[in-house]
Parts: sequence; structure tokens; C-alpha cells
Amino acid sequence: MSTYALPHGIYPYLVSPVDRDGRVDEAVLERLVSDLIAAGVNGVTPLGSTGEIMYLTPSQRRAVVGATLRVAKGRVPVIAGVAAFATTDAVDQAREFAALGVDGLVVMRQNAFPASEEGVIDYFTEVARAVDIPIVLYTNPTLLGSDFTIDSLVALSRVPNIRYIKDATGDTGRILTLINRLGGKLEVFSASAHIPTFVFLLGGVGWMAGPACVVPEAAAELYRRVTAGDVQGALALQRPLWSINECFRKYPLAACIKAALQIRGYAVGDPIRPQSALGPAAREEISAALADADRAMKG
Amino acid sequence: MSTYALPHGIYPYLVSPVDRDGRVDEAVLERLVSDLIAAGVNGVTPLGSTGEIMYLTPSQRRAVVGATLRVAKGRVPVIAGVAAFATTDAVDQAREFAALGVDGLVVMRQNAFPASEEGVIDYFTEVARAVDIPIVLYTNPTLLGSDFTIDSLVALSRVPNIRYIKDATGDTGRILTLINRLGGKLEVFSASAHIPTFVFLLGGVGWMAGPACVVPEAAAELYRRVTAGDVQGALALQRPLWSINECFRKYPLAACIKAALQIRGYAVGDPIRPQSALGPAAREEISAALADADRAMKG
Amino acid sequence: MSTYALPHGIYPYLVSPVDRDGRVDEAVLERLVSDLIAAGVNGVTPLGSTGEIMYLTPSQRRAVVGATLRVAKGRVPVIAGVAAFATTDAVDQAREFAALGVDGLVVMRQNAFPASEEGVIDYFTEVARAVDIPIVLYTNPTLLGSDFTIDSLVALSRVPNIRYIKDATGDTGRILTLINRLGGKLEVFSASAHIPTFVFLLGGVGWMAGPACVVPEAAAELYRRVTAGDVQGALALQRPLWSINECFRKYPLAACIKAALQIRGYAVGDPIRPQSALGPAAREEISAALADADRAMKG
Amino acid sequence: MSTYALPHGIYPYLVSPVDRDGRVDEAVLERLVSDLIAAGVNGVTPLGSTGEIMYLTPSQRRAVVGATLRVAKGRVPVIAGVAAFATTDAVDQAREFAALGVDGLVVMRQNAFPASEEGVIDYFTEVARAVDIPIVLYTNPTLLGSDFTIDSLVALSRVPNIRYIKDATGDTGRILTLINRLGGKLEVFSASAHIPTFVFLLGGVGWMAGPACVVPEAAAELYRRVTAGDVQGALALQRPLWSINECFRKYPLAACIKAALQIRGYAVGDPIRPQSALGPAAREEISAALADADRAMKG
Repeated sequence: MSTYALPHGIYPYLVSPVDRDGRVDEAVLERLVSDLIAAGVNGVTPLGSTGEIMYLTPSQRRAVVGATLRVAKGRVPVIAGVAAFATTDAVDQAREFAALGVDGLVVMRQNAFPASEEGVIDYFTEVARAVDIPIVLYTNPTLLGSDFTIDSLVALSRVPNIRYIKDATGDTGRILTLINRLGGKLEVFSASAHIPTFVFLLGGVGWMAGPACVVPEAAAELYRRVTAGDVQGALALQRPLWSINECFRKYPLAACIKAALQIRGYAVGDPIRPQSALGPAAREEISAALADADRAMKG
Repeated sequence: MSTYALPHGIYPYLVSPVDRDGRVDEAVLERLVSDLIAAGVNGVTPLGSTGEIMYLTPSQRRAVVGATLRVAKGRVPVIAGVAAFATTDAVDQAREFAALGVDGLVVMRQNAFPASEEGVIDYFTEVARAVDIPIVLYTNPTLLGSDFTIDSLVALSRVPNIRYIKDATGDTGRILTLINRLGGKLEVFSASAHIPTFVFLLGGVGWMAGPACVVPEAAAELYRRVTAGDVQGALALQRPLWSINECFRKYPLAACIKAALQIRGYAVGDPIRPQSALGPAAREEISAALADADRAMKG
Repeated sequence: MSTYALPHGIYPYLVSPVDRDGRVDEAVLERLVSDLIAAGVNGVTPLGSTGEIMYLTPSQRRAVVGATLRVAKGRVPVIAGVAAFATTDAVDQAREFAALGVDGLVVMRQNAFPASEEGVIDYFTEVARAVDIPIVLYTNPTLLGSDFTIDSLVALSRVPNIRYIKDATGDTGRILTLINRLGGKLEVFSASAHIPTFVFLLGGVGWMAGPACVVPEAAAELYRRVTAGDVQGALALQRPLWSINECFRKYPLAACIKAALQIRGYAVGDPIRPQSALGPAAREEISAALADADRAMKG
Repeated sequence: MSTYALPHGIYPYLVSPVDRDGRVDEAVLERLVSDLIAAGVNGVTPLGSTGEIMYLTPSQRRAVVGATLRVAKGRVPVIAGVAAFATTDAVDQAREFAALGVDGLVVMRQNAFPASEEGVIDYFTEVARAVDIPIVLYTNPTLLGSDFTIDSLVALSRVPNIRYIKDATGDTGRILTLINRLGGKLEVFSASAHIPTFVFLLGGVGWMAGPACVVPEAAAELYRRVTAGDVQGALALQRPLWSINECFRKYPLAACIKAALQIRGYAVGDPIRPQSALGPAAREEISAALADADRAMKG
């Protein structure tokens, strides 16, 4: 497992700043990545669902990954997302990002018609074999309409560079199931729907999530406390931080994170059309949640 | 809040032993309740979903509550379930069980057609006002097809004897939301889909769940550890216990608990028809999970 | 098939007029049934989902069936609904209504936990064997969360008095599938979600539906036209009638039919609590749809 | 409406023959299109869901449209599919296909995060304004997770070249609603889940569907009968044809049509990976359905 290991901890999901006409604003993304690294995150993940990966053309995806690498390369790992319906398309994306220099891939499978278990295993296996960097399997049944069986995960864990699974459900019991069943075979990252303190207590290795993009210091501090065994200290920070996750659950994902980053001073623009920007009431709610989180960090 | 307080801790959901022709076997239920109290549980809850409440006629419900009270009355609180589609029916059930002497009610609302928020508030308010014992609101969107809004819960918390909400989702983040929003107004019980250790860490006051019926000593020990601040000790027990919850998630609820109790030596019979008993493979899986839990208690 | 045959045609689903405190207003129900028979319907069906069967206690169900029988017995068949979770409960309901004198039963199965295919077949077989009147199987996956397989239907069609299936999906292609597969074994009634003209063209034998309760003459006339081979004439009536079905799709079922019957001059009261009555805008929309239908009948 | 009118009738959805490595077999597609035109279809539609549009890269889409145009251009209209998450991507696809020479577009909107009604209207409006050919709006809530409101459709019908809506639900009542509400504003095509005879009886203008690709003569004959007023003759053909639609409902769409075309002698290959080809039992069932349909045509 040493060969394809990733550092544990906090991996903010990055936004994709794209204007009305489809141009990527690389400068604001570079500033964001630079600030996140300064805030102590352990890696960055461009092209997740938070990064509106499904809404991006191949050249837009390339621009986002390129900008991220320019700032982060050699400082923290860059784990880029791959999302495709067809196996061959996923393989091509993986090869391209590996050639650009990313340190790992989070691989999701989009889904219009059912695939057999064999087809699913082939999809992820072919992607993994096409590159020589660690692979994080991604599952989000609500967003993608499919899930892995435990048997599929066991089969996939035999591919040398498939080392992680990222669970984007909000079902913490499922994380415990994954760790009980796959311990030593696959390690578990969780997403924003989970309470990260508990994921870490269960043995999860990281939190890959949009909220970490808007409260990176607090996320890093929470990770430090829980890994230091300070459960009550972690929970004291977790409680107020949760109101940010609640915003992410309540509002459309991309609209929410882009509003939050604008409040934080990053001109990342609106979510990609036909999505709409949040209105003033939602922005006020997000502002209040950010202020609470900031107070909790100082207090 | 003192007036309508319930003891915190472990509340096993009881089964309803009903034979093919609809007769309730009160003797086996009495023995089970007696053993659970001896094992250290903090209360017992007849007529939950685990108790197949929807499948029971009014006279069967009465028999189950009566048998439970005969054994538990004065030793641990008996919190009986109420389930109805119509408001007037729920009120009648609540009055009847209160007259029989139960110490509290868990109230669920079945749902065929939508009810307005006002209708929902009226339903639970009328039930609460019809009795003078504590009320636990019950929510299980998957089973019942409806949920409370936070605003409804705040409104309902103003009724003096509505003091608790039992959350039967598997979404632990939602428990944190409830506690953040309703702290001091409603206290939170959780169901089997949650990891009880985490519910207690968040400030939840109890675990009302079917699995507590088949591993009562372990559930009580887990509660002791977590309330004593021994998080790692609680997790060490939680991990093997979780495989019992996994059985409850995997197999139909009533079939699962009745099989588990048969394995434990209680002749509680099969789930009420048209439900079917579990087959041998499932029983073996449950046996193995029970053996793991027993080993964890001794180890 | 002769022994257990029902007349073909229009079967309005009756409402259950129940006041705030749970009393059934039998007088208004009797007047409604009398008027429907005068309008030319082919049978009446108390205790359907339109009749809020799930919301009724056993004694309320008895009162509704009794009132219907007093008026209809010997004039048109009375096909009462049976709805239960448990097999034994369904059998008891069936026996009781048969003893009261109903001419057939529409049997639905409520569902909290999964039943095996064998359990489902047993449920309907036991109900059918308990009585000596024709049985209509009922399927409504959206409302009840379960459906029959074609194999189950073939098995059930071997029980002598199981002669019909009522399909309450809105999927007309499914009716064609049922008729292609079960032709000669089970005949098909449809519900309000279907366009009745097309159901009759495909060989369906009747329309059991709430809307037939508020436009009985038009429904009977539509049936006459389509059985006389006048497809264009039937469609000319079907088009404006459809706006009534749209109201039934748009608004909660019981609230909708009770509002429509109030507009027609029947004081049937509000839907059973916690359901709410419709507001003025919805009532106006229903009034307009009824006026359109009336115009179409005269025009 | 004259300017942007399309011929009414039968529009087979074409498959996309793509090999394991992603190469489009243009020769087999050209032969299929040629045979369909000879069989009397009224137009052809590459890049529908049947054509696995979501699984195709931009260059694969171009190849499929190009091959179709080479054979069909000037003989029957070619109505190409557009599918995108982002508005700008949909506009680019539309422009590109219009430049290639297609006669119309069926526009679908993929969906990962919610879009406001305004965003939806903008998406389709921008696509329509980017070209000068007729636009068919596409709705398939099951596949795409979103639907149009009637108000949105009325707003979109004001864009001069938005002239049609294709409904891919199986809910025939909805077609009647669309025609009652949008008559004169948008005309309705239906998909394979509907019984085409009934769609035509209601005033629908065409059947765009995969099954028309494998029984083109029968589909064309059915359309002739129903437009000639021979309802009984149409139904006599419709009944056996329906078993082909049942295959399309039962099996994954792309796997089903590719198997059916292989049986018909077209080497269109397997569905695009990770989808799997159908097994022998399914192929036999499809063969039998095709044989039934062929017999019905001769009989």
C-alpha cells in the first residue's frame, strides 16, 4: 500500500470558475488554491461534483486541472476528478490528467442505463490500469443513481493502485460497514454529507468536501484535534461547523459553494448555466454560518 | 421539563409474537421483557415498527401492551407505540394505552395522502393533549413517507408533554441538526439505523432500537462506556455490534428480529403474514453476528 | 367465468363522509348512491382509496358499506374495498362484508415490510377462499409500494372467484400487457389515472374511479359511445372530461373528490383529519372543470 | 407554423454502432438508414437516448450524424439529438449539427443539480435561437430527473422555431393534457413507452421511438391505418407490436435495440461499455416478439 498512498486529512473540493460564455477564470482559482494550502489543507481536489465536473467540456476540465497544478504541484497532492458514461472516455480522461501531472484520481461513473457488476468492475479497472497513480473510487447513489456492492469493492481492491473509496452518502453507518469489511484493502474518504469527526473516529482517512474550501483553517484544526485524541475538542468545533454543511445540504451544491466563496472574497462567479445563483436570503444564511464558524475558531 | 422526563439510555423495541391465526403469545413476550430488564435496559417499547404495529388489530395491540405492563410496570418505563392514519384514531389509541398504565407514547403518523403542516401539528397536538404522559414524536421518512419540518418541531415542542423526537433515519448529520436547532426544546432518541455511540456523543438521550432486544447487555454496556467518557472503549464494542445492525438493514425488520430472538431461545414465531420467515442462510448470518457481539462483550 | 362475473362499465368510487369526531354521515352517502344509480352507473364501490379506506376504523368501514347496501342492494352490484397489512385481518374484513351482502370485493394489500411472492399469493388466495363472491385484485404501486408480477397474477387467476384486476397506475401500455398476457384469465378494470376510452378500446371491462362519482352521466355516456364503436364520439367527450381527471391528479385524492361533491351539492364534509380541505383556488379550478364537463354533455 | 414544420409520422431512433475501442461503424449505420427509408419511415433521429447519446464523445456524435446525413439528406428529414448539462455546450452542439445540415433537433437537458424554471427556459431558448431549424423539446423525467411545467412550455412555444415536444413518459393521460393545454402552440411526438395508436388518436403528430427501427414497415402501416380512421385495424396490428415495446421496457434500452438489430441482420455491435450485451434468453424473447410482429404484418 505504500506505493500508492495519499496523505490523510482535509481535501477541499475546488470550484470551477466559468463565466457566462464558458471561459475558465484561472487566476481566481490559482489564488484560492494558494490560500487553501496556506491554511493547512492536506491536498486539493479539482473536478468533483462541487466543481461541476458534469457541466464542463474537455477543454474546460483541462484548464481547471492545469491551473490547480500550477499552484499546488510539489506542495500538496492534486487529486483530479474523472467522470464519464463510457469506459473508453473515462480511460482517456485519466490518461490525460496523469500526463498533466496529477497525484491521484477520484473516479466516478455516470449512468444512463444499467451496467452489470462485471461492466462496473471493468470500468474502474481499465481506468486504474491506464495510469500509475492512486485511484479513489467514488460513490454517490443519490447523484449518480448507482452504487458498488461490497463484492465489487473487494474485487476492485485487488487492482494495485485502487486504494481508496470516497463515500458521498450521509449514512455514517455505511462508513463503519465499509471499514469493517474492507479494512486493509481500501481506505475511506468521506464527503460533506457526513460528520467528519465521526468518520475520523471510525478510521476514515480523510474528508474530501466542498465546505473545506470555505472554512479550511477550521477543517484542518478539527482534523488535528480528532487525530490528537481530543474528541470533545473536535466536537466543540464540529457543532458550529455543521451549520455550513447544512447550507450545503439545503441549497444546490455549486450555487452554494460559489456564493460562500464570493462572501469569502473570491470572485468565482455564478454556477454554470442553466443553474442559477442563490438569492439574497440564502446568501445571508451562508454568511451567518460562516461567521459562526469563524467565531468558533477564535473562541 | 422535569414533569414529563423519561430516563435516558437503552430502550429495546419489543417484538409482537403472533401466531398464524392471529393469537398473541403473551407468555413468551413476558419472559423476554423480564430478561431485558434483568440485562439492564432503561425502558421497553412495545408496538414499534419492529413490533409490527401496522400489522396488528386493536385487540392484538392491547394484548401486547398488557403483557409488557404486567412484567415491567414499576420497574422500567413502558413506552408504547401509537400508529394511525386518522387523527381521531390516534387519539383513541393514546387514551386507551394511557388508561392501561403506560409511562409514555411513541407516536407515528401513517400516511396515504398528503397532510398540510397544520394538519400534522394538529395530529400530534391532539394526541398529546389527550393524555398526561410524555410523548416521543417519531419520524421515519422511508417507512412512513413523511417527515417533520424544523418549524413543525418547534411548534410541537410548545405542547408541555411533547418532549422527545425519535429519528429513524440513518443520517447522523440530521441528529446534529436537530440537537443544534431544538436543544432545550426536544431531546433526541435514535433508532437502529444510527450508530448509537455517535448519537450519545452528540447529546442524544437514548437508543430505541430492535437490536437492543437481542444484545441488551452489550447495548447497556456501550451506553455506560460512552456516558463515562470512554469513547475508545465504546467504539471497541460498537464495531462488532454493528454487524447486528447490518443484519437489520439487510433483512426485513420483523423477520430479522424474530429470527434473532429464536436464535436467542425465544419462541416468538414468524413475522405476521404475508411476511415470510428468513431462510437458513440469513439465520446463519445473524447467528454469526450474535456470536461476534457476545465475544466482544467477553473480550 | 360465468359464476363470478360482474357487469361491465362504470363503477364510481364512493366517498366516506366522516365528520371531525369520526361519525359517518350515512344520509348523504345514501343520497349520493341513489343519484349515481339514477345517472346510469353499472355498480358502486365503497371503501376504495378515494373512500379513504386507510383512514377508517372497522366500525366506520361497516357503516359506509351498510349505507351503500341499503340503497344499492338488488339494483346495481356493490363492490366493497378490503385493505389490510395482515392476511388474517384481510380475511376477517372480507368475511364481514360478504356477510353484510356485498356483491364483490376489491382487495388491496398494504405494505410496511416486504412480502415474498408466495406471501402475496397466499394473502389474496386466503381472502378469496374465505368468501363466495367475485374478487378484484387491486394494484397501485405508487400508493401501496408494491405490485404483482405477471406470474403471480397467473397463479391467482386459478382461484375460481379471482376474476378481475384493477390497475391504478397511469400507464396504459401496462393495461395492454395485462390483457395480452392474462386474456381469458383475468379481466381488467382501470382507475382514474387512465384514459377510460382507451382502456375500453383495449378490452378493459370497466372504469372504477373517483371522477365517475362527480360526472356519472358523462362517464356512462362515454361508455355507451365506446362500446357502440363510436370512437370519435367517445373522444369528443373524453377530451373535456379529462380536465376532471387532471384535478384528481393534481390535488390530494380525498380532498379533491369531497370538494367536487360539495360543489355538486352533497354535504360530504372535509377529508378525514389530518388531511386538509382544499382552498378556494383549487375549488374554483374544480368548478370550472365540472362546468366544462357539463357543457360537453349537453353540446 | 409552416416555416418550421416537420412531416408527421414514424421517426425511428437510430443506434450508434461503436466498437470496444470507441470507433463508429459508419457503414452499418448507413445501411440501416437506407433500409429504414425504403421501409417507409417519415424521418430518422440519430443521437437519441436509444442512440446512447450520453455515452458518446463529441467526435463520435459527429460521425453518427455525418453518416446519417450522407444517406438521408434530401430524402427524409434528419432530426439529431442534442444532450448537455451546460447551456453553452448545448448551444455549441446545436450549431455544429445545424452546420452539418440536419433538418431539426431534439433537445434534451441533462441534470446534476437543480435549475430554476428561468434557467430551463433560457437553456432551450438559447439553443433554439442559435439555429434556424425546428426544435423538438424532449422530456423524460425518469431518465433525466426533470420535467417541464406547463407554464415553461407555453413560454418556450413563443420562440418561433420551438414547435414540438417529445414526451418519453409512459403516461398517455399526460399527452392528452399537453394537447388540451398546448394545442396550436406545440405539437406532440411520443416515445416508445406510449401506445402509438392512442397518441395518434389524441392528435399526436408522430412516434419517435427505438422499436420503429426494428419493425419499420409495421410502424408505418400502423400509422397509415390510424390516420385513415381505421382504429380497429390499427389496434389489430398494435396488439402484437406491443410485445416489442415490452422488450424495450424490460431490458436496458441500448442493449435491447442492438440485440434486435443484430437479429435483423445488422452488425451494430454491443452497447457501449460499461453496458453489457443481452444474454441468450433475452435475445430469444426479442426474436419471438419480432416474429410475432412479422406475422401480424403478413396476416
